[in-house]
Amino acid sequence: MKPSIPKGTRDFSPQEMVKRSYILDTIRGVFRLYGYLPIETTSIENLDTLLGKYGEEGDRLIFKILNSGDFLADVKNSDLNNISSKELARSISEKALRYDLTVPFARYVVMNRNDITFPFKRYQIQPVWRADRPQKGRYREFYQCDADVIGSTSLLNEVELIKMIDDVFTKLNIPVVIKINNRKILQGIADKMGASERMTEFAAIIDKVDKIGMIGVDEALKKSGFNEPQRAVFRSHLHKKGTQSGIQDLRDIKNDAAYFNSKIMADGINEIEHIITFFGEYEGLVEFDFSLARGLNYYTGTIIEVKVDSSKCNSQFTSSIAGGGRYDDLTGLFGLPGISGVGISFGADRIYDVLEELNLFPDGLSVSTQVMFVNFGDAQAKSCLEWIDQLRKAGISTELYPDDAKFKKQMNYADAKKIAYVVFAGEVELNKGVVKIRNMASGVENEIALNKMVEYFSKILKTK
Amino acid sequence: MKPSIPKGTRDFSPQEMVKRSYILDTIRGVFRLYGYLPIETTSIENLDTLLGKYGEEGDRLIFKILNSGDFLADVKNSDLNNISSKELARSISEKALRYDLTVPFARYVVMNRNDITFPFKRYQIQPVWRADRPQKGRYREFYQCDADVIGSTSLLNEVELIKMIDDVFTKLNIPVVIKINNRKILQGIADKMGASERMTEFAAIIDKVDKIGMIGVDEALKKSGFNEPQRAVFRSHLHKKGTQSGIQDLRDIKNDAAYFNSKIMADGINEIEHIITFFGEYEGLVEFDFSLARGLNYYTGTIIEVKVDSSKCNSQFTSSIAGGGRYDDLTGLFGLPGISGVGISFGADRIYDVLEELNLFPDGLSVSTQVMFVNFGDAQAKSCLEWIDQLRKAGISTELYPDDAKFKKQMNYADAKKIAYVVFAGEVELNKGVVKIRNMASGVENEIALNKMVEYFSKILKTK
Repeated sequence: MKPSIPKGTRDFSPQEMVKRSYILDTIRGVFRLYGYLPIETTSIENLDTLLGKYGEEGDRLIFKILNSGDFLADVKNSDLNNISSKELARSISEKALRYDLTVPFARYVVMNRNDITFPFKRYQIQPVWRADRPQKGRYREFYQCDADVIGSTSLLNEVELIKMIDDVFTKLNIPVVIKINNRKILQGIADKMGASERMTEFAAIIDKVDKIGMIGVDEALKKSGFNEPQRAVFRSHLHKKGTQSGIQDLRDIKNDAAYFNSKIMADGINEIEHIITFFGEYEGLVEFDFSLARGLNYYTGTIIEVKVDSSKCNSQFTSSIAGGGRYDDLTGLFGLPGISGVGISFGADRIYDVLEELNLFPDGLSVSTQVMFVNFGDAQAKSCLEWIDQLRKAGISTELYPDDAKFKKQMNYADAKKIAYVVFAGEVELNKGVVKIRNMASGVENEIALNKMVEYFSKILKTK
Repeated sequence: MKPSIPKGTRDFSPQEMVKRSYILDTIRGVFRLYGYLPIETTSIENLDTLLGKYGEEGDRLIFKILNSGDFLADVKNSDLNNISSKELARSISEKALRYDLTVPFARYVVMNRNDITFPFKRYQIQPVWRADRPQKGRYREFYQCDADVIGSTSLLNEVELIKMIDDVFTKLNIPVVIKINNRKILQGIADKMGASERMTEFAAIIDKVDKIGMIGVDEALKKSGFNEPQRAVFRSHLHKKGTQSGIQDLRDIKNDAAYFNSKIMADGINEIEHIITFFGEYEGLVEFDFSLARGLNYYTGTIIEVKVDSSKCNSQFTSSIAGGGRYDDLTGLFGLPGISGVGISFGADRIYDVLEELNLFPDGLSVSTQVMFVNFGDAQAKSCLEWIDQLRKAGISTELYPDDAKFKKQMNYADAKKIAYVVFAGEVELNKGVVKIRNMASGVENEIALNKMVEYFSKILKTK
């Protein structure tokens, strides 16, 4: 049997793990600095918790788990000939893998509402699973890193979340553009088009303007059954898109809102202006883009999207690497209405790809052993274990090569594993009460008294 | 809809997360100190990778994932009336959730053998899933923390792994008994019983002696079809079990091996004695127990099991909290024979339960915000954000209460979240260039110059 793993899934080698830890630790560090607390939710949710929350496309992409045991026992035989996969799935699968972290978080908040102090600021770093068609940069298992605050309508939360985005990418050294919009503006336009109920659909099409252009969007709207007068309303708000600055777009939209006498659009604009005020200067940190829509059903206010700023670096990466927004009633789906939340999510896997592309992982990221003792046989090994113990107690990662193998083989191992120092403590050395220490990078060897060894390594390896 | 999570699954609150991190960080720290490198493997494996590796019972407990899309398309309709759940499952499910970390590790080693330097010492801390009947202390999703070395037959690996167990539990302050045995001894007995092929079955029954006693084991063997002469051979080796020390048991077994002229038993005994020699004194660290069998099919040499030492603490916890062993041919299942490995696994969830039971979590475990600024409205908030930035840059986790809420509400929030210090920077204070700082534990308030605040907090919070 030749082993393999499913398409779209991955393993991570030690070299990849250390890079991934660098990203996750950076994000986690920022979350903590801003007072967000960690939670984790179960990977396996009841299917009912997830279905209907991500749109029809999302439902299709949820990984369903087959019921345990004799799962057909309760399915009437007579049905089986006529049943569709979708219908049968409902009978033989009650559980599913987490699709994102936001819906499970809302579920968590509702279940634990009596123990939670609101506003509740939580972060969560866990894998999610989607039965997406695997392609470059898109995986079926990937990590999301989410921070949300729930139970506060203050726009200060948006301000802080945007600052967190800026902090993370500043620390990671990735130049980014942070775009914001507000669903209320899109809702206002949809209202004026006489298509209030189709706002999500409308938003999903608008979102593609960067890819398919204005004419493409118009065609897509037509194809979706938006009639000419509806599209005319829409076109009057997008015709300048891409030809002027965000600040000018914002002014135009403001005029449109006044012209329409649309309260919801005015609210959306006010919210954006309020957020911008906090940063002191427009487009210093955020850029208004009213074609930004983001796919998810549940956003109702601010929406945020982060992309690599290709004007400042040599990146071909066009997908978003972080994003988020405000949802006014996510917990309402689980019976707790009227609690507003806002959050952001970092795509750790995409950030990984960008750091690789731009060669931005710091030098010297390593989790390898710091010191290796050469194995000269059991008797010597036994003596060495006591010294190795002391090095470990001093926080120095140390190993003894496990086999009494040829010297060359042991050195090759130390080389391949990028171990910093190799210690020779053979019979001759131990009798003299010394060890020979080789710096593997420089090849320089030093003889050190056994009882000075811990001190020596503590100093050069700068351990605590 | 009232939200719930599937039976046997769990969420983790911030309070639980900090305790879990304490355990995982301790284990990870020891793994690193001993030179083990991290990997992670995909959660979703091909079903074929897992089936047949954990015995029949294990196969039943694997969570299977329903194929995506129209999974019935290739199942002939005519079959559906007569098909069993088990047969249908093979047609509609090709993927499954990881059941443990050892088999995926073997699969990983085979797939990446050209990039790996052997001996390969890896650790892996990830959740696994089992469709077990949920009960107290047994979950359907739980974390395993594994360290394995593959590609070395040296018993020094066993010695180091046992030291790692000792290090972890010493750091966690849990008194434990580390029992060892060797599958070769059990194999030798099974051979002499004329039941060589039934060793795994035999071992699984023996393993229960602590629960069901010697007579219970004899009955279970009878029930499983072991005849009287076979059981007589077995009884002659277990009759003293529990009545004498491990060292005496070892001497007896040694005599038995000589009497039987069993090379494989002698090998097993030699291995145990070799390991013990390294620790200098018998039962200092490990205790021989030849009824120890451990369930998993793939062990072939040393086996290790760790339980709470209830003679040294007030614990009712009888399940094992760590364990492991040597497997001579796990990668052979995936087409790479002849590579021996040995490893240990810590059960993080059980260790959590023991630490709770014994009240052994250290005081002061916390991930909460260190400093909270009271919100006095937007204008003041904006001024404060600059100072908050500076505190965060100094590594101090700081938040501004997001809403301009009543003072009492803000203080209640700080109390509930166990925030250490609250800062009052209202208009009066800011005009004077000072802030008032309240120590929430003592209630003491200090007035500090704004430009001394970072220094002040850095000092009292001892941040780097």
